[in-house]
Amino acid sequence: MPTDLPSGRVQPRFAGVATFMRAPLLSQVRPENQPADWAVYGVPFDGGTTYHPGARFGPRAIRDASQYIKPINFHAELDLARELSIADAGDAIVAPYSCEGTLEAAVEFASKLGDPARTRLLALGGDHSIALANIRVAWERAGRPATGLPLLHFDAHLDTADTIWDEKYGHASFLRRGIEDGCIDPERTLSIGFRGPLNTMDDLEYATGKGIEVVPMTRWVEDRPSVDRAIHEWRASINQDPVYVTFDIDAIDPAFAPGTGTPCCGGFTTAEAFSILRKFEGMRLAGADVVEVCPSRDVSDITALAAAHVAFEILSIDAGAGG
Amino acid sequence: MPTDLPSGRVQPRFAGVATFMRAPLLSQVRPENQPADWAVYGVPFDGGTTYHPGARFGPRAIRDASQYIKPINFHAELDLARELSIADAGDAIVAPYSCEGTLEAAVEFASKLGDPARTRLLALGGDHSIALANIRVAWERAGRPATGLPLLHFDAHLDTADTIWDEKYGHASFLRRGIEDGCIDPERTLSIGFRGPLNTMDDLEYATGKGIEVVPMTRWVEDRPSVDRAIHEWRASINQDPVYVTFDIDAIDPAFAPGTGTPCCGGFTTAEAFSILRKFEGMRLAGADVVEVCPSRDVSDITALAAAHVAFEILSIDAGAGG
Amino acid sequence: MPTDLPSGRVQPRFAGVATFMRAPLLSQVRPENQPADWAVYGVPFDGGTTYHPGARFGPRAIRDASQYIKPINFHAELDLARELSIADAGDAIVAPYSCEGTLEAAVEFASKLGDPARTRLLALGGDHSIALANIRVAWERAGRPATGLPLLHFDAHLDTADTIWDEKYGHASFLRRGIEDGCIDPERTLSIGFRGPLNTMDDLEYATGKGIEVVPMTRWVEDRPSVDRAIHEWRASINQDPVYVTFDIDAIDPAFAPGTGTPCCGGFTTAEAFSILRKFEGMRLAGADVVEVCPSRDVSDITALAAAHVAFEILSIDAGAGG
Amino acid sequence: MPTDLPSGRVQPRFAGVATFMRAPLLSQVRPENQPADWAVYGVPFDGGTTYHPGARFGPRAIRDASQYIKPINFHAELDLARELSIADAGDAIVAPYSCEGTLEAAVEFASKLGDPARTRLLALGGDHSIALANIRVAWERAGRPATGLPLLHFDAHLDTADTIWDEKYGHASFLRRGIEDGCIDPERTLSIGFRGPLNTMDDLEYATGKGIEVVPMTRWVEDRPSVDRAIHEWRASINQDPVYVTFDIDAIDPAFAPGTGTPCCGGFTTAEAFSILRKFEGMRLAGADVVEVCPSRDVSDITALAAAHVAFEILSIDAGAGG
Amino acid sequence: MPTDLPSGRVQPRFAGVATFMRAPLLSQVRPENQPADWAVYGVPFDGGTTYHPGARFGPRAIRDASQYIKPINFHAELDLARELSIADAGDAIVAPYSCEGTLEAAVEFASKLGDPARTRLLALGGDHSIALANIRVAWERAGRPATGLPLLHFDAHLDTADTIWDEKYGHASFLRRGIEDGCIDPERTLSIGFRGPLNTMDDLEYATGKGIEVVPMTRWVEDRPSVDRAIHEWRASINQDPVYVTFDIDAIDPAFAPGTGTPCCGGFTTAEAFSILRKFEGMRLAGADVVEVCPSRDVSDITALAAAHVAFEILSIDAGAGG
Amino acid sequence: MPTDLPSGRVQPRFAGVATFMRAPLLSQVRPENQPADWAVYGVPFDGGTTYHPGARFGPRAIRDASQYIKPINFHAELDLARELSIADAGDAIVAPYSCEGTLEAAVEFASKLGDPARTRLLALGGDHSIALANIRVAWERAGRPATGLPLLHFDAHLDTADTIWDEKYGHASFLRRGIEDGCIDPERTLSIGFRGPLNTMDDLEYATGKGIEVVPMTRWVEDRPSVDRAIHEWRASINQDPVYVTFDIDAIDPAFAPGTGTPCCGGFTTAEAFSILRKFEGMRLAGADVVEVCPSRDVSDITALAAAHVAFEILSIDAGAGG
Repeated sequence: MPTDLPSGRVQPRFAGVATFMRAPLLSQVRPENQPADWAVYGVPFDGGTTYHPGARFGPRAIRDASQYIKPINFHAELDLARELSIADAGDAIVAPYSCEGTLEAAVEFASKLGDPARTRLLALGGDHSIALANIRVAWERAGRPATGLPLLHFDAHLDTADTIWDEKYGHASFLRRGIEDGCIDPERTLSIGFRGPLNTMDDLEYATGKGIEVVPMTRWVEDRPSVDRAIHEWRASINQDPVYVTFDIDAIDPAFAPGTGTPCCGGFTTAEAFSILRKFEGMRLAGADVVEVCPSRDVSDITALAAAHVAFEILSIDAGAGG
Repeated sequence: MPTDLPSGRVQPRFAGVATFMRAPLLSQVRPENQPADWAVYGVPFDGGTTYHPGARFGPRAIRDASQYIKPINFHAELDLARELSIADAGDAIVAPYSCEGTLEAAVEFASKLGDPARTRLLALGGDHSIALANIRVAWERAGRPATGLPLLHFDAHLDTADTIWDEKYGHASFLRRGIEDGCIDPERTLSIGFRGPLNTMDDLEYATGKGIEVVPMTRWVEDRPSVDRAIHEWRASINQDPVYVTFDIDAIDPAFAPGTGTPCCGGFTTAEAFSILRKFEGMRLAGADVVEVCPSRDVSDITALAAAHVAFEILSIDAGAGG
Repeated sequence: MPTDLPSGRVQPRFAGVATFMRAPLLSQVRPENQPADWAVYGVPFDGGTTYHPGARFGPRAIRDASQYIKPINFHAELDLARELSIADAGDAIVAPYSCEGTLEAAVEFASKLGDPARTRLLALGGDHSIALANIRVAWERAGRPATGLPLLHFDAHLDTADTIWDEKYGHASFLRRGIEDGCIDPERTLSIGFRGPLNTMDDLEYATGKGIEVVPMTRWVEDRPSVDRAIHEWRASINQDPVYVTFDIDAIDPAFAPGTGTPCCGGFTTAEAFSILRKFEGMRLAGADVVEVCPSRDVSDITALAAAHVAFEILSIDAGAGG
Repeated sequence: MPTDLPSGRVQPRFAGVATFMRAPLLSQVRPENQPADWAVYGVPFDGGTTYHPGARFGPRAIRDASQYIKPINFHAELDLARELSIADAGDAIVAPYSCEGTLEAAVEFASKLGDPARTRLLALGGDHSIALANIRVAWERAGRPATGLPLLHFDAHLDTADTIWDEKYGHASFLRRGIEDGCIDPERTLSIGFRGPLNTMDDLEYATGKGIEVVPMTRWVEDRPSVDRAIHEWRASINQDPVYVTFDIDAIDPAFAPGTGTPCCGGFTTAEAFSILRKFEGMRLAGADVVEVCPSRDVSDITALAAAHVAFEILSIDAGAGG
Repeated sequence: MPTDLPSGRVQPRFAGVATFMRAPLLSQVRPENQPADWAVYGVPFDGGTTYHPGARFGPRAIRDASQYIKPINFHAELDLARELSIADAGDAIVAPYSCEGTLEAAVEFASKLGDPARTRLLALGGDHSIALANIRVAWERAGRPATGLPLLHFDAHLDTADTIWDEKYGHASFLRRGIEDGCIDPERTLSIGFRGPLNTMDDLEYATGKGIEVVPMTRWVEDRPSVDRAIHEWRASINQDPVYVTFDIDAIDPAFAPGTGTPCCGGFTTAEAFSILRKFEGMRLAGADVVEVCPSRDVSDITALAAAHVAFEILSIDAGAGG
Repeated sequence: MPTDLPSGRVQPRFAGVATFMRAPLLSQVRPENQPADWAVYGVPFDGGTTYHPGARFGPRAIRDASQYIKPINFHAELDLARELSIADAGDAIVAPYSCEGTLEAAVEFASKLGDPARTRLLALGGDHSIALANIRVAWERAGRPATGLPLLHFDAHLDTADTIWDEKYGHASFLRRGIEDGCIDPERTLSIGFRGPLNTMDDLEYATGKGIEVVPMTRWVEDRPSVDRAIHEWRASINQDPVYVTFDIDAIDPAFAPGTGTPCCGGFTTAEAFSILRKFEGMRLAGADVVEVCPSRDVSDITALAAAHVAFEILSIDAGAGG
């Protein structure tokens, strides 16, 4: 079912209460005649951040910037609003002072959104710790596959730390926790954008030990064909299983995405990031998130715009796969 | 009837789709059990601006900043949310390329909001040209008083220009048009904050010729008791008639409100502005607006926060008068 | 004839009243001994903008930034100031509240600049709607060719919308109007940088239907040799006819050009943009513009600097073709 | 003993590794010949913040800005560096994810600084939750007075909330916890700068119920002589007991201090804040803190400079009292 | 003779090559029919700065901001453009790497501007070191009075340092050098806005030793009537002699003027500064400067606007005295 | 010997007095048990700048940003802290008003740092003029090789100007002076990133005349294999001689490094710059500098972070060569 988006020719894009891409609120969508394909919701939490906090304001900033994300993906030749029914479900309840409390609250919130049999969830962060909640619910909705979900991971960091400052659920540990939970299948996890400097080699060793395919940034810079091959092989490995996509905005370079908490120079341009995302056309999705937008560090809202555009490209993958 | 505001202790103030002060959408308010006392709506239009445009993004910025405006006015000893039923009515349809088209569209939009017999309208600009639309509807709702509405006007400028660049409905002309329309009573208009430099003395001569009481900024700086006297006399003159309040954020100094299109140094501090507003405690209101917030010129959102706080103080006047 | 530019070794580049590249004012140039090859002028108008306005301040910002654009193009091996006589003609009169009024006023202003038989016009926007005025005069000066001028168009958008908000002369319609006017030859128009998301496919269908060669951004990212071929073929098609170049700064990515009104992620780096411009070395020019610089959204003036640099590269094309 | 500060005439103020006011590191001070009167240390923690986090970067920003705080207080007619021995003790260890963990770690860190019999502690926040740690140690060093320490409190908020989001040690509760601990004497607590809007009246009721003298911002605006009287009476009440001073930078207006996490319009100018601080000349100090500087929200470092200047004025009070 | 300023109703204030208040270039003014009363020129030099450099870009920023300074001073009831003939003389040649070289070059440049018998000079800095050049020429034009010129000095600092870093002509020494030169009469010098913290008491002792009347900021805050008395007495002492006015923008608080090199909290609001300037109505002027605007530290151009407004108020003093 | 860096897991990266990469102060390093391999020091001087000054604040900004540069270079597979002993030596004494004075003072300061037989020097600018001082000392420590040191030079400019504004030691002349001094071997100098626009062709002619291998930016854009060949040949030419690396941050594009004094569009991305630096793996170093970071022009500290990262990559080259 299509999304009922107001036309920019009638309601200008600078007008109106800002929902994601101007989609209707999920509470306003009548499920009987328009079951949502995607419920987009925010998780305004940054209590898992290790450097610059502020991603709690990310969902609001992405919503504001997404006003200028129009529905047609020219490259993929599809109109997102026609292919998918999208709704904005507002923000999850969070426990601002507790990673674990927020995890539980967000899982509870997300579990109730839309029609579990149909509705996929796109979470807007918040720091990367919030991905775990969305992954858990995506895994539930995908029928609790025993191997866990295949994961497509864009990030400058691996987020496979065990504990930091006595916290197991911080933003550098979501991937490890997801693997331990059984929600993520490390052997079908592709991590793109990794680069240093690093505190420790442990995170990388854990990742490769678990079978994660790590495509560091330098490989993209030095040997693009090998990246294409890695993507090709990974896509073959996942068969037609639905994939969870997690996109940490710091995969993109600080020049394009200064508004993030743990910036790392030498990342992707947005043109490169979109190009890579488009290599996954036709892939089925189990859920997704876009995280680590920290508006207080942003300039002229370019990071929030990039994040909204990334979300648009992720949804386009799903639309291209038939929603 | 009180407003159903989510507690910041449950839903943090950085969470949720941003409506004005987190009030419910007017479309979600059931008029039978909670007729809105105030409908707050945006008019995202800056086509009447003579210097820096950008106030079309003002309503969104004020909504975002207003998340941190809590409901209790400590000084006035009242809880806005208990005294008044407030709803966010979204943004008016505008004609972005036409002052007159926007005027008509905004009047049509505003006329339909809430219960005309009860609901007053608070417009968030947009440039000052949008005030005229709201004044017209406020005058309608006040029963079309023959003398026009008394006006309380905060502004660095008089906005009594006739035409600029062949436009009669630009942001420097709203007051003149309102007087011509018969919606505003110039003899019961009090204009506070006027200062130069000026292009011409015509606007001031028109204003004083029509009987407007102009309290220039310099009088506040040099002789505060005379300002108190002027306010006292004006309040006596309006008797108990409901008053329209229009607040151009450039009445406040650019240090406190850099995000505005025609900034003028030497204005009020926010502490001074709030102090003056509080001198009108107990006054009945016919309608109000807060205009000229231009987010692209703002820094750390302080202008939007000041504007949201001004709106809160204006609503507090009404709440103190029994709503 | 060369331009009389003050040396940075005598008058530092941070000194002096800012004219474009420190060129003399056209009013100070004696036409009898130095007929201007190029008159650069601003059109400070943003009334045609559909998202962030503010490009009315673009000409001033570009002039300020252009102080640091030195005259020698190392790559093209030429000294712009020796090859061309350049003058700054100030800003066109505009009708700030009317696209059509500005169009007429700017045409009238531009028509009188310099020696029509010799002087080409480089317009600094302002939003893209102002290009139409300059194109009209360029077409006049080129001898009103029946087919219209060949056009080289850099832009994230096609600008072939028919009307938006009842306006035929807004910034998204200049190209369509220019084709309708007969000033632009769509069959010899090359549009580079197009990308989405889009409101509608109509603009693209109109463009391709008229014979415009559209090189979308994705083609540059995925298949550069095909872009080279497209450029080669287009250059062959124009023969030696003088070309009009219009450069919307949003062709460049928001990381490099945040200061623009309708930013679109995934664009060119400046290095790429300059590289493409250099592919047109030796091409004769009929006129040019650089538009959509919106200083209130800029950071550290990098957008204005990029725009000034683009203008420098465009003029270098002309200088390389013998002026 | 004086502080060994490098002269700005030898080492310019933009040079050198930044310590507070360019004071020596405490680890470099030989206690036998220069026991520190004041150890200044940072507590880079913002896990107790309810709105914009980021104050964890406050100590670094204040150190950087304090390079331009010179040692002589012209008004108080004293040279801070001659009157007091000041050292920078670096930053406390914190538990970034735990208010209570940070409280304990900071107490442990601070307890060991300098000579307990002589050295007072000035903590640089960090959010206001960190004040409690410093107050505890100050109370220890003051000999554990049974009534608790008299407190001079500058703040837009009362910080007497009980728990927020299940946290007892957040930044809005430090004062309540300090009273419960017995470290603060509420009956000799003077709180200046309080203003709304408020979530609840509970905090004020608790404060006044405990005997805290609250001087709201409006009293300063409307009736300055009454503020002078309140200060006079409070000073009489504390006799010669050493006082703890806690200064939340949000007591100052967002125009002067935009870089803070819970900004509240209508606050003090810096000139007013300094003027009030000077009313406490000659008062003995038990300890102090300056908190809530959030650099990511600052502009041109003016908030950090104001905070450093406030710290300078607080130390001047102590110097004027004989150190 | 009046100044020929383009009306904002014809040429919008965002249009045109930016000269000071849109005045004609001095080179375009025909002296035979319009001898300039005031020549405004920039001195883009910051080589004398002791902290944040960047004031070399001050003249350009003030010119840009001055576009919005309209000609009529409402309070003084005069139209500057009618009372005075004002021209923009461009920027002085400077020696960017030499204080003394710049002093000489600027004196040479300024000496030739306009009609020495009639034209007064308003210099736009640049750092405060550039004032000395303008003072020397003003003193020349005033007929080399033996006592030196009376000086009205607004500044957070006294600028009476002898040498700093082996430089006698830096920005902290202009006043001392001017006294030594005999151009300034210290006994008729009134210095307003002085505040700390200070490096040394020497500068103050030198100043008071020479008979300078120093009105520190604290006196304004604590005892305004005494400031009025000091101004009254000083005005009596200068009789009808023309006065030189030097205004360091750091006299104004960093909240209002963040764009300056040596910011000092606790300064004037712009409303206060304008109010004080207006206390000098009717005073004859020998010359003036406005200095220390550092655009790289400015936000939303408010410092440059304040500086342009200060220049406007200074010229209004002269206009009110008959030009 | 390894560097004793505090773990981010114990002392968070936002905590502590900021030294370069959190290295110990050189004054705290006991040379007997840990002779420093590298002493990193700042030269806070910008008196040689020709456009935007402010790089005097560069060392402090780089130190602050370097807190987030972790020690392990994933690509080079080494832990910098284990391979090298690094210490922060603070800032050189400078003569802020004199290029030559600063040169002498910095040489004197640097000459005394660490163990001349072992300790190499990494200077943090400051403008590029400060490189000359460090080069002189590096050449001393390398045993005063008769041919001068091989130089690897990243820069948008050649810095081979003779004198500018009568100054021989400004930031555009360091390379010429170094060649004249005999410290640099022009025939083994590789300059990467050069681009225009230019004032003059003299600098390029001087460079090529002296045998410098200039790899302009356009060659990188158009023909990367030829850049690889040039690097390969240059590396062959230097044999195993230790090389001096000087990195002007303006080699990187203004989108990635806006915080610099003479920005030039069309430069490297950081990913490209790091990739090129890695082509020099295993090369022995004689010394290095990273210069021209101007924090007042920076946004969200991305330039300072890029500079710190560049320094990290340079040190990694040395670590990879065995330190």
